[in-house]
Amino acid sequence: MREIIGGVCAPRGFKAGGIWCGIKASSKKRDLGLIYSEKACTSAALFTTNRVKAASVQISQKHIAGGKLHAIIVNSGNANACTGEAGLAAARRMAELAADAFAIAPAEVAVASTGVIGVPFPIAVVEHSIGALANSLQGDESGHSAALEAIMTTDTRRKEFSVEITIGGVPVRIGGMAKGAGMIHPNMATMLSFITTDAAVSRELLEKSLRRAVQRSFNRVTVDGDTSTNDAIIIMANGESGAPLIAAENDDYAVFAAALEAGCITLARAMARDGEGATKLVTVTVHGAADEQTAEKLAKAVAGSSLVKAACFGADANWGRILCALGYSGAEFDPAQTTVRFQSPAGAITVCSGGEAAAFSEEQAKAILSEENITILIDIGNGSGNATVWGCDLTYDYVKINGDYRS
Amino acid sequence: MREIIGGVCAPRGFKAGGIWCGIKASSKKRDLGLIYSEKACTSAALFTTNRVKAASVQISQKHIAGGKLHAIIVNSGNANACTGEAGLAAARRMAELAADAFAIAPAEVAVASTGVIGVPFPIAVVEHSIGALANSLQGDESGHSAALEAIMTTDTRRKEFSVEITIGGVPVRIGGMAKGAGMIHPNMATMLSFITTDAAVSRELLEKSLRRAVQRSFNRVTVDGDTSTNDAIIIMANGESGAPLIAAENDDYAVFAAALEAGCITLARAMARDGEGATKLVTVTVHGAADEQTAEKLAKAVAGSSLVKAACFGADANWGRILCALGYSGAEFDPAQTTVRFQSPAGAITVCSGGEAAAFSEEQAKAILSEENITILIDIGNGSGNATVWGCDLTYDYVKINGDYRS
Repeated sequence: MREIIGGVCAPRGFKAGGIWCGIKASSKKRDLGLIYSEKACTSAALFTTNRVKAASVQISQKHIAGGKLHAIIVNSGNANACTGEAGLAAARRMAELAADAFAIAPAEVAVASTGVIGVPFPIAVVEHSIGALANSLQGDESGHSAALEAIMTTDTRRKEFSVEITIGGVPVRIGGMAKGAGMIHPNMATMLSFITTDAAVSRELLEKSLRRAVQRSFNRVTVDGDTSTNDAIIIMANGESGAPLIAAENDDYAVFAAALEAGCITLARAMARDGEGATKLVTVTVHGAADEQTAEKLAKAVAGSSLVKAACFGADANWGRILCALGYSGAEFDPAQTTVRFQSPAGAITVCSGGEAAAFSEEQAKAILSEENITILIDIGNGSGNATVWGCDLTYDYVKINGDYRS
Repeated sequence: MREIIGGVCAPRGFKAGGIWCGIKASSKKRDLGLIYSEKACTSAALFTTNRVKAASVQISQKHIAGGKLHAIIVNSGNANACTGEAGLAAARRMAELAADAFAIAPAEVAVASTGVIGVPFPIAVVEHSIGALANSLQGDESGHSAALEAIMTTDTRRKEFSVEITIGGVPVRIGGMAKGAGMIHPNMATMLSFITTDAAVSRELLEKSLRRAVQRSFNRVTVDGDTSTNDAIIIMANGESGAPLIAAENDDYAVFAAALEAGCITLARAMARDGEGATKLVTVTVHGAADEQTAEKLAKAVAGSSLVKAACFGADANWGRILCALGYSGAEFDPAQTTVRFQSPAGAITVCSGGEAAAFSEEQAKAILSEENITILIDIGNGSGNATVWGCDLTYDYVKINGDYRS
């Protein structure tokens, strides 16, 4: 697997674009994007588990049921959630507009939205701009970049990847983008991710590989299964690489699934680092747990603890808060067998051993925790289960951003 | 029921005191407190459900099993948690020291601690000061105040109550104090509460009334059942009022239990308002839910949402975040039947009706949300279950306080 450029346009046969159509009325930043494949794509998707689902999610769930997509149309600046029948009509209309532009069926278009909840959706500006959007498509890095910019809201960093692997001797590419940056409860902010590949993959295995990759990446960006009204991740596989179809769980599948998982982890880590107001990426790795599920539960409690996050911001080696978070995680473990280490490019120290304070230099701890990439390593001493979760620190700016989001 | 003064010293036969003994080495604020009844008290308690339990909690759990207490000794400045065998020995020693001072049995003394986790407990300074502590006891408001000050850490406000009720024609008093102020995940910060009464109550009914009161008060201060390593609430009933024994669930019990619940709600509201860095008390009331449990789950999701809390800080009527929080609460409800209102001394407005935006004045909403006491009223339109949960806003100062707690 090697990194290449191009994002969602790296795989053959995909074009993308993004424009400003007027939904972000004041900022005039790009707010409407499109990803398109001339050849119909085997597709799979995962959506929010929130009971309140955006109109775009409801429409896309129907369209994805068919298993084939040509395009994804996406807007930022308005979530089109809690907008009733008018919202559903607008989401349906977005799919129609994209379908008409490329002479495909509306059911072959997925729709995604991100932005403020509860504001009527201004479908007229999308209608007005669909021609310009279609004309903006490009099959290279610049098309990818324009589409990526069109999905960003409070994001301050680009989240993207593209890699090349070999399937049956043929080069196969996978590319992706994501947006999302609301990280105390990460999934309360919308997470969108779109992934393209020129691999040929059966619907069943495409969905299976996506589900597994998401479980080990986006679902491990702090805290729990809470999801916003709009969360969606969609993958499109058009087979344009000419590589053999992946239709069984063989070596080809393993190579594809591993690359997809690595790509999703790249996007998920970038989301954690871009947590609203965050200054640090905090990686929490639990090992020695009874099993992977237990390790994940313990790691999520630590990465999701506001007190741990605030201590990371202050570079304060307050490991007691870590023990406390482990203690309320709901997972079985023996505090007296627990070891906690802090690691960063500046060094590594054990701060807690056997559930009690280890002798360590506060000065060294401060230096380690002052780095931008911090790892909290926790050994439960009880088995071989391990899991890694990504979070960020909690800062003044988180409050600033969220205290006045709408204006 | 009428309010009186005196706190835990309002009920007859109770004395209290608090001194600085040296655990809070730098601030020289009071750090050691005692509540004492010459007559043995029927007692009940509830402790943290965290798997990591402070030494004081482990010792008090044993002592309370006997059902009788004469005293509670408590310190702030050190949690005596994650301190191993030495910590257990220190907690045992604290009970012994108090017992020796009053010629009672160590098993009749409860021990409580709050402060930093994982720092060896300086038992020597307690040994040195036990005489001064015993001598500081007073049976009035000033004794209560000294003990209350001795349990405060990041608390900026006093949490206390005392009321008088009538049982069998005899005036009966209940008084209490609490500390706790770490409110993103509220119970991650230690919550301590001590309640005294001169009622005569059977052990069984004392425990039952305490459990119910806690469920409807402290357990409804934002978020979930997460608890710190040190949380404890202890009630002591010495019967000194001369009122008839409450040993059956009759009218006397109902009067006592209602007063205890009201007292606990007073303390819980004060804790929410004193959330670290908080500028506002945010009361979330859900009605029209299928049952009380569902209503509580929905209300907790809203009060615990960092995005809702940040919006309250910014006085931003971002009701979409409320719908989103309801949606991931895990409770069953129909968004299309949901109404959301904001209320405060400045007015009341409906911001969401039938799950969609209601027409409202942003200016009026801003005025309502700029008040110090905000109520979010949510009608689920599906039954008669209701519940109220108390939270606070999320501010820059929360981050400041928790980014550098230990120094």
